This record gives sequence, structure tokens and C-alpha cells, in this order.
Amino acid sequence: MDFEIKYKDAMGRIGKFKTPHGTVTTPALMPVVHPGKQTIDVEKLGAEIVITNSYIIYKNEELKKKALEEGVHSLINFPHTIETDSGSFQLSVYGDIDISNEEVIKFQEAIKTDIGTSLDIPTAPYVSREQAEEDLEITIQRAKEAMDVREDLILNSVVQGSTYPDLRLKCAQEIAKNDADIYPIGAVVPLMEMYRYADLVDAVMYSIRGLPEDKPRHLMGAGHPMVFALAVAMGCDLFDSAAYVLYANKNRFMMPDGTLRLEDLVEMPCSCRVCSEYTPDDLRAMDQEERTKLIAEHNLRVSFAEIRRIRQAIVDGELMKLVELRCRAHPFLLDGLRQLKMYQEDMEKLNPSSKKSAFFYTGEESLSRPEVLRHKKQLENIKPESENLIILPHTRKPYTKYLNKEYIKKYTQKIASYYTNNKEVLDYRGADVVVADIPFGIIPLGVDEFYPLAQNESPSIHDETSKQFIKDAIETYITKYENVLIHKKIIEKFDLEIDGFEIIEDELQLADAKISDFDRLRQIADYQFGSGCGEALFGCDPDKIKIEKSRKTGKIRHVFEGNENIVNMRANDGFLILSDLGAIRLHEYLDAPQKRVVITRDVEEYALKGKSVFNKFVISCDEDIRRNDEVLIVNEDDELLAFGKSLLASYEINDFNSAQAIKTRKWKNKKQ
Amino acid sequence: MDFEIKYKDAMGRIGKFKTPHGTVTTPALMPVVHPGKQTIDVEKLGAEIVITNSYIIYKNEELKKKALEEGVHSLINFPHTIETDSGSFQLSVYGDIDISNEEVIKFQEAIKTDIGTSLDIPTAPYVSREQAEEDLEITIQRAKEAMDVREDLILNSVVQGSTYPDLRLKCAQEIAKNDADIYPIGAVVPLMEMYRYADLVDAVMYSIRGLPEDKPRHLMGAGHPMVFALAVAMGCDLFDSAAYVLYANKNRFMMPDGTLRLEDLVEMPCSCRVCSEYTPDDLRAMDQEERTKLIAEHNLRVSFAEIRRIRQAIVDGELMKLVELRCRAHPFLLDGLRQLKMYQEDMEKLNPSSKKSAFFYTGEESLSRPEVLRHKKQLENIKPESENLIILPHTRKPYTKYLNKEYIKKYTQKIASYYTNNKEVLDYRGADVVVADIPFGIIPLGVDEFYPLAQNESPSIHDETSKQFIKDAIETYITKYENVLIHKKIIEKFDLEIDGFEIIEDELQLADAKISDFDRLRQIADYQFGSGCGEALFGCDPDKIKIEKSRKTGKIRHVFEGNENIVNMRANDGFLILSDLGAIRLHEYLDAPQKRVVITRDVEEYALKGKSVFNKFVISCDEDIRRNDEVLIVNEDDELLAFGKSLLASYEINDFNSAQAIKTRKWKNKKQ
Repeated sequence: MDFEIKYKDAMGRIGKFKTPHGTVTTPALMPVVHPGKQTIDVEKLGAEIVITNSYIIYKNEELKKKALEEGVHSLINFPHTIETDSGSFQLSVYGDIDISNEEVIKFQEAIKTDIGTSLDIPTAPYVSREQAEEDLEITIQRAKEAMDVREDLILNSVVQGSTYPDLRLKCAQEIAKNDADIYPIGAVVPLMEMYRYADLVDAVMYSIRGLPEDKPRHLMGAGHPMVFALAVAMGCDLFDSAAYVLYANKNRFMMPDGTLRLEDLVEMPCSCRVCSEYTPDDLRAMDQEERTKLIAEHNLRVSFAEIRRIRQAIVDGELMKLVELRCRAHPFLLDGLRQLKMYQEDMEKLNPSSKKSAFFYTGEESLSRPEVLRHKKQLENIKPESENLIILPHTRKPYTKYLNKEYIKKYTQKIASYYTNNKEVLDYRGADVVVADIPFGIIPLGVDEFYPLAQNESPSIHDETSKQFIKDAIETYITKYENVLIHKKIIEKFDLEIDGFEIIEDELQLADAKISDFDRLRQIADYQFGSGCGEALFGCDPDKIKIEKSRKTGKIRHVFEGNENIVNMRANDGFLILSDLGAIRLHEYLDAPQKRVVITRDVEEYALKGKSVFNKFVISCDEDIRRNDEVLIVNEDDELLAFGKSLLASYEINDFNSAQAIKTRKWKNKKQ
Repeated sequence: MDFEIKYKDAMGRIGKFKTPHGTVTTPALMPVVHPGKQTIDVEKLGAEIVITNSYIIYKNEELKKKALEEGVHSLINFPHTIETDSGSFQLSVYGDIDISNEEVIKFQEAIKTDIGTSLDIPTAPYVSREQAEEDLEITIQRAKEAMDVREDLILNSVVQGSTYPDLRLKCAQEIAKNDADIYPIGAVVPLMEMYRYADLVDAVMYSIRGLPEDKPRHLMGAGHPMVFALAVAMGCDLFDSAAYVLYANKNRFMMPDGTLRLEDLVEMPCSCRVCSEYTPDDLRAMDQEERTKLIAEHNLRVSFAEIRRIRQAIVDGELMKLVELRCRAHPFLLDGLRQLKMYQEDMEKLNPSSKKSAFFYTGEESLSRPEVLRHKKQLENIKPESENLIILPHTRKPYTKYLNKEYIKKYTQKIASYYTNNKEVLDYRGADVVVADIPFGIIPLGVDEFYPLAQNESPSIHDETSKQFIKDAIETYITKYENVLIHKKIIEKFDLEIDGFEIIEDELQLADAKISDFDRLRQIADYQFGSGCGEALFGCDPDKIKIEKSRKTGKIRHVFEGNENIVNMRANDGFLILSDLGAIRLHEYLDAPQKRVVITRDVEEYALKGKSVFNKFVISCDEDIRRNDEVLIVNEDDELLAFGKSLLASYEINDFNSAQAIKTRKWKNKKQ
């Protein structure tokens, strides 16, 4: 089964896959439909896919007969995609069931289910390691058996491993070898019921680490909208909900920020049809059946709306903001969010390097977003040009537009003095100048328009974590310098305790807080492509480089040497876009495998002509490649064939077979 | 006009007031209806009250004629309450208008508007102080004039003062003297447009400080649902929205967590009728008029749902949780929330002392909630019983159920050692024992079931602010003791840097981490009523006190001396409820005005009979009284007449005239 990813944010994705009964867009919620007693029309409320239980059908003679004769779609009266569960849940509850793995696969095939499930062993959280390992062997073996038995069935293969992260990883890696179609992550319901969200994050993230990028993952039993955003950000694509009706039976209203009980309600909680047309008293006056139907409708409407909201957030590049909002529904969900910090590296590997929306700080957890880690890494690419450093407080963004020597001087008079590590040094002309700001820490002036260093907002009243963050960022950064001047406003604003001397401002010689276009270009190139790439692309002589700027915005647009275009700058994110000469120079300067995507001989001529590169022709690639990065396309002899924009992260390029990997840019001068 | 408050949380309230055309429940959103060209039926979407512009009617001959003949209700075809604005907005935009204050009041009266507005001067933010003061004089003078001119009109009197908090306060105090019916807070739209939410909080809170509790306040021009919760928590009751249609005209969807643009949408963002029945492409294909109507419907549905959600949060006592969620929609709104910390004292004065819901920590801002300040104050009431103190890490709640000497010992073996300020002291038998926990800091064992010390949850992964908070709480608390033993787990978990010595656990003599029922009672009484009240109520001899406990929960229920009931304990919040003897003893022990509500002679006999006390008969009261507190009812000679539960905070008792102040408890033995 092919799974195509359309949009991506953090580890979340909007994808599509086809089944015999339709196309499913993910993230998707699969309402659980009872094969015998369903009363709610989930299709009308927007379900594209549902899940029902093949074991219940199998055990009921009447249902079984009808399913075998007419198919499961007719049985439950749903024309689109149907997934069936295997009876594992019954196994976990009753300890034993009357069907074998092989039988249940064949039965699902016989009733024409679209997506079937093997009979895994749902190992509960916190069991003994021995137990978890024993169960795991059976689960892995049955997953393999199911793949051998199935004919056309799209097949689920479930990740188990209890609360042992390494077993989750092992299971995922093992079952991934069978190349199943969808990977559910199983036996996490007890964790959600106990609000053990930090443990849920561990179980899911270790499972995801072992799973391929090109298949959907299903977080089994996750049916509460308050957990969807977090789960999607970890890379889960499918959810199932019996909760909408189970909660309704108990007169509970699901909301993306928690659960409300009808008995407590004085007002209806949302904008859905049910909440607009009825009052809590209306519902309380009804009989339970009628009431359940209406509350279940509310629950599903809210759940589908949340799925839509998450998809929109992925498209906008605002998924982590939404996750951070949603995870405040409960303090233990907030623990889940905070635990996610442990997986910042995982997330950074799959997070696009440029997004549509600004980075909005929602609280200290925002400092653990992948963009912050990415900046920290890329900051290493910029090497000192002086032994002296000036650290300035932030202004409006981009900083260089609002920051200049006069402004700083003027500001200094207000705040009276600076601090330094060395009182002797008073001449800071020619010093390197950076800004210290939340959420990115140290920002050299040259990259102040690079995404997301200009496209972000944070509160001006700082929390303790932000203060500590700035302190750490400064302490790390100043080790590269002999003499450091830190603006007093930073020290005050972030409560820094720094050994230094107060300087009378008149004695001080300041650097101009400006950067030339040439130096800016070199700094951006270093930051974006790696240390030294600025010099490699643009040399050392500003006079040789011609820079064209936008008349409207004053920003750099095109860069030439003579008549040859080296790079262009993308207006929305400040990225350098390679042109012929830039690609050639970058290829010369950077050793393989840096920035490389290596393709097979067969498609070499297509790449040379500027045709896009598909994953299946990629032999290997630099693991530092992220979505939207500029890359070099080479053959196995590292000959430069073309260059372009990566549409996937390296980890996706490796896993995907069908999708497009690189959008190739055409050579302006046909390459020799 | 009477304004009755039904429920309260933080400074937010659910209230009701009557106008000639209906009853209005607050918080309420008043959609702005254009008198000449309204196309959206706001009544159908749930509006109980609308606002329209009397100056536009006045300036248009046709509208004016119809309004004067048929009344404004017929003109805009809305049968319920109508508020009219005075033309101040036009004044602020065009600098001059063709109507006097007196004329506009009379005109509003003539067209039979329910709630009219005087012609104030909307002074923009950040004008010169001179300008703000000049404008203010006129605003105050016109407010007075309007009161003199009006006949039956319910009258708005607008607070101005630009961004000068002291001028806001002065204006509020001055216009409050006129006893107008509703107090709008004006000229804050530019602050919201500039996202200057910290300044908005200052402007609103200083206005509120000067306004009476018994009148509704209207945050003028606040129409975006993302700001409603914050505004309600500050004590605002009414909002008006032209934004629903202005945003719709620009194809913008309002959401409680921000604004979305149709051009960016791939999915409809909510569960409302419009979002369920249409796709973004459907809307994009429509003509603007049709599209505006639908988006405006979405905007209003979402806005009304948010108002309902806020009301529900007030009833549940979860308003601050909702505010903390909503204020993460934008970093500058988060600044507003953080600025609110400056007004923690204001909020604590009006915040009920007991609530229905648990305190859920949503982030470091939760530590600024009024409950935390209240606990800090009441903690002062508990005096050391020993010179030695043991600080233990938290367990599940209530702590004493899970904490005991054996458990601590066992735990110690795992963590190997303790720290102390004084290595010499190894005998901690008889020491005071407290728990250190987020969000309340230090919790003595005896009050571990008192609301909200048992009814709260916080994440187990701590942010820097929480660490600093615990550090500060411990540092403050240990100054009362000679020797302090801090459990190593606390030191590790909160990164404390404390000078101390590691002790080999075997040398150590521990206190039993238990508390006797008698000591618990005394500690609760001190905490709830004031230092020394425990001894005053229950004496020093445990043998004289009979304690009855619940068979089911094991909690204290009734407390006697001989056959006389002193107090009872309320199961849901652990508060001591006075009985005859308790009231008499508390009255003897505590000097006036502590815990007193002083009532007039006229109603003395009713109070003696156990009839409830109404505000209008209250002469004065202890300013420390909060909603749900136990209080003593006395006459002017401080003779104890009765006792009961306060239904209002002291500040409300002083301001309200009509409402019930104290729910009196009946004397069991007729008082002599």
C-alpha cells in the first residue's frame, strides 16, 4: 500500500492512502462501529474510515453469516474504508479466544475488510520484563505469519513491548522487516486511562524510531481529542474512537481541552449543532438512548473538528503551538509534552527547515521545539571574525533594521553602562555583534532575516526557564571570544549574574551594529550550508560580487560574480537558493556526503536535464538534509549532476519508494 | 439597575440584570448591529442583547424618523435588550460630531433604547499625560451631566484615562460616585490591535479597582473570543463585537486561539454548522456577500460558544485554567497573563476560598493564581510546635494517607541519606513535619485535606519557575526553625543548592510522619481562622474532645466537647464549619473585626433566629472574608448574634445592596 505525504510539521504529517473502498486522508479518526448494535450514523458526521471488530462478527452466527455472504461493508452499512480488529482486545480482557491468528486473517479477508489486523498480544504497561519479552515473541511471530497468509488484505502489524522502550523499538524494527502496510501502536489505552502521558510519549517515540516513514501509524485506542495533537506531532496518523459513544453513555462531553459531565453543565460547551440546538436541561430531560445519541454526535463532531484543526496546523507549520496549547488540558498531559523534550533530536531530524508561519512562543516548553535545536547546531557554523564580542538586547525584528550604533549609544545613555569580562578592553570597533533573544538565544546580525530568526514572537515578561536559557546560550557562546561586552539591559532583563566591570560609557569605542551585504551573505552561507561556505561561494573580495536588492523591501535578491548568478535569496525565509555557479562552488568546497543526494546511473541524464528526482533512484544522501533544504544531486562518483530543493528529510528519502525527493532546479547554462 | 451575581471565580462572575426588554445573563457578548444595513440575524444565533449606534441613527433622517416613531427595537428588528453607543467612536475618528452630550442622552431616551451611553472622550493609548487629564475632565463632567439628564434610561458611564493607570483609577472612582448602571472601559481597542496586552491588563485592572462590585463592566470594542476569558477573569462582564462581521468581510475566521484566513485554509476549523456543512473551497467559490454571511455566522457561533465555555468555567471554578490556556494563543496575550501577576492581591480579595474543581497546574503562570497567595498567607497562621523541622517530598494526596515513618524510612534506604543544616542534630522525633510540593510550596501535614491542598495536580517534570518557587518557599519557611532536615529527593528534584551535611540514615531518629486527629483539628483551625484558634476551639487536652469520623472515608466529621458540638468538617473541602460552641469560642478568642460581619440593630432578631443576612443590613465586615468562609455575625457592640457561611467576599458585601451576604446557620441550642 502506498502512503503519500502531502504536508509535514514536526513529526506530524498529512498523508493519503488508497484502499479498495476509497481514499483516506490522515490524520484520520476511525470511529469504532459495533457490528451488531450501531445507532449513530458516523458517515453523516464525516467518517471516511471506520473500524469494527472481526472477532465479534466471527463469534455471532447471524453476523458471521451475513458478513460472509454480503461482506462487512453491507453488514455495517458503511461504503468507505473499513478496518477490522482481530480480537486482541478480547484476548487482553478474557485471556483466551476461540480463533487462531491464521483463521482471523483469513476471516477478515473473507468478509472483504479493507484493512485487517493480525492477532497480536496486547501486553499491558508495567508488566515484568520477562512477560513483555515472552509476549513480544508471539506478537512478532504472528505478524510474520499474517504477512504470509494474507492475500489482498491491507495489513496492520502491531507494535507491542509494554512500557519497555527498548522492547517497543525492537518490536517495531522486527515487524517493519515484514513490510506490513500500517503499523498500529498497541496496548497504550491503560497509560491514557492512568494519565501516564510521559510514559505514553516514551512508548510511542521508541515505537516510531523503529518504524519506516512511508507507512501510516495508528495509535490504538486513542479516541480523546485532547491527545490527538500530541500524538500527531509524534508521527501518529490514525486514531480510533469507541470513546465517543462510551463517554456519551456516561453523559460525558469530550472537548479538546478535557471532558465535561452533563450533570455539571449550566451551558453547552461548544459551537456544534447539538450544543447550539439544545440546553443541558433539554438533554437531562431526555431518556438515555436519545441523550446518548446526541452527546455521541457532539463527541464525534468535536473530534473530527480537532482532526481538521490539526491538519490545518500542519499545513501552516503551527503544529507544535497547537500541541503546546492542548497539552495544558491536564497537568499529566503537560508531563507528556515535557517528556517530548527528550526526543528533540528525533523531531529535528524530520522537521522542515522552513515553514509558512512564525514561531510563536507559548511557554517554556517552546524552547524544546526542533527549530531551537536546529539553530543551536547551525550557529556552530559561524566562526568568530574578531576576538571581541558585543552582545546586544533585542529590538523589533529583523534586528539590523532597528539596531545601529547611534541607537545603541542612545540606549546606553539611558542605561548608563556596559559590563565586560576585561576592563582593559574599551575598543570594540570591529567586534563581532550578536543579539540575545528568546526563543533562539544568540543571533549573529547577518542571519537576522533567516527563518525563523526573524519570524518569531515571544513574551516580553520572561519566565525562569527563558532566563536560564539565555544565560546558558551566552555562556556557551562567549567561550569563543577573548573579550565580551554584554549590554546591561540583557543582564537586567534575564537576571544574569556575570562577573564583570561597569564601564563608563564615554570611554567605550563601539562597533557599528550594522553588517555589510557581503558579510551578511557570507554569514548566511556559513549558517545555511556549513562553516567556510561563505568564502567558498563569494570569496573574500566584496568588489567582485554584485548584489541586487529588492527595491520594495531593500532585501538581497540576486547575487552575481561577473554575469554569473551564484545564488538568489528567497524573500519569505531568507534562504540562499543555489544557482549554477553556487552549486558548482558548493560541490567543490564541501566534501561528500555533505549536502549530497546520490542517485543511480539510470536517471543521471534526467537529472542533468533538470527533471525531478524520485526516491527510488536515490542511493544515499546526507543525513543532515531536511525538508526545504538546498541540496546537490550527484552520481556515485560524486559528479555534480544537478541541484535543487529537497522535498523530504533524509530519513524520509531513505524510507520512501514512490515519492518525489528533490525538486531539481534547471541549469541556466547547460552543464558540460 | 440591580445586578445579581450568581457564580464567581477569580474576579469573573456570572450575573443577571433586567432591562425593559428582557433579562441579560453575563458574561455576555453584544453583537454590534448596524441600524441601516444589518444582514445577519444575530437573535437566531443566540444574542440576548445587541448594541447599535444612536449617532448613526441620529445622523440619518430616515433612520431617525423611524426610530423616533417606532422605537429602536422596531428599527433594528430586535425584541430583546438594546444598548446604544453615543457617537464617541465617531468623535475619536473624526474629531468632532454634531450632537451634545445632553442631546445624545435625550435622543437615546426618545428612541426607547434600553441602555444608553453618555458622550465620553475616548482618549487613545500613549497620548501625553496632559492630553489624557484634559480629556478626562470632560468625560467625568459629561458622565455626571448624563446622570442628571436621564430619566428611565439605564446608563453607561465610561472609564477613560488612556494608558495612565492612575488616571484610569481616578476616572473610575469619580464616575462611580454618580452611581451609573453599567461601567464600560473605553478606548482599549488600539491596545488590542497593537497586541499590547500587558498594557491592556494595567488599564483594565486599575479601572476595575475604582469600580463597584455590584455593577456590570463592559470592555468596549473587545470582540475577539481569544480575549474574552482573560477579560472575564479581570472582572469584565460585557463585550461587544463588530469584529464578527468585519473579520468576515476580510475572510477571517475567529477562533478562541487566534484568527485563521480563508486563503490559508485546507480544512474548516471548528465544529459549527458552517464548518460542518461547507469546505474552504465551497466558500472560496461564493460571492463575497454570501461568504461574509457564513463566516460571520461562524464567528458569532464560536464567540457565543466561548462565552458559554467561560460561564461553565466560572461555575466549575476553572476560570483561571481556561484563561491560562487561551492566553497562549499569542505571545503578547501571554504577556497579558503574566502581567496579571501584578494583581494577584486584587484577585485574591475576590476569589472564593473553596471551589468545585481541583487546581490544575497548566504552566508556571499557575503559581500566580490567587489560591497560591491565599495559602502563603494562611500558612503564616501555623506556628512551630518544635524547633526541628522535617521537609518531605510529596506522595499521592492527601499526603498523610500515603506518608508514614516506615514509608519514609524505606524511601530513605533507596536514596541513602538526608541533608541537614546542623550535623549535630540527629534526633528528629517530635519534629514538625511538612511536605514540599508544587503548586503550594510548604504544606503542614494537618492541612493536607484542606481545599485546595489536596485537590490539585501538577506535572512531575518541573519547570525552572517551579524549582525557584519551591526553593523560595523552603527558604522562607525554615527561618522559623533551628534545625531542618530536607529529604534528599526534594533537593534532587528541585535542584536545590543548600548548605548541609549528608547524614548516614542509621544514625537518624525520625518523627512519625503522622498527625493525630486532635493536632490536625488544631492545625486546620489555625490555618482557617487564624493563629491560636485551634487552642481556643479545642483546648490543649485531647481527652476532652470527642471526634466522630466517617466510617466510609475515615475523615473527621463532627467534633464535640462533652455533648456540645464545636465544629463539623465539610467533606468536599475539609473546611471546619462552626457549630454553637465553636462560634462562641471563636468570638471570644478573636478580637473584632476578625471574622466579623456587623449588622444593624433592626435585623438583630432575625439573625438570632437564623435568618439569612442581607447586604443592606451589614454595617461593616472583616476585609479578610472571602466567598465560602465561615463568619461570625455580631451587632455594633460586638455581641455574637449568629454565624454562617459568607456568600460574598468582604469587598462585595460592602458594594452590594440587594443580595444575600451570609447564609446563617441555625443555633442548635437557642442562644441566650
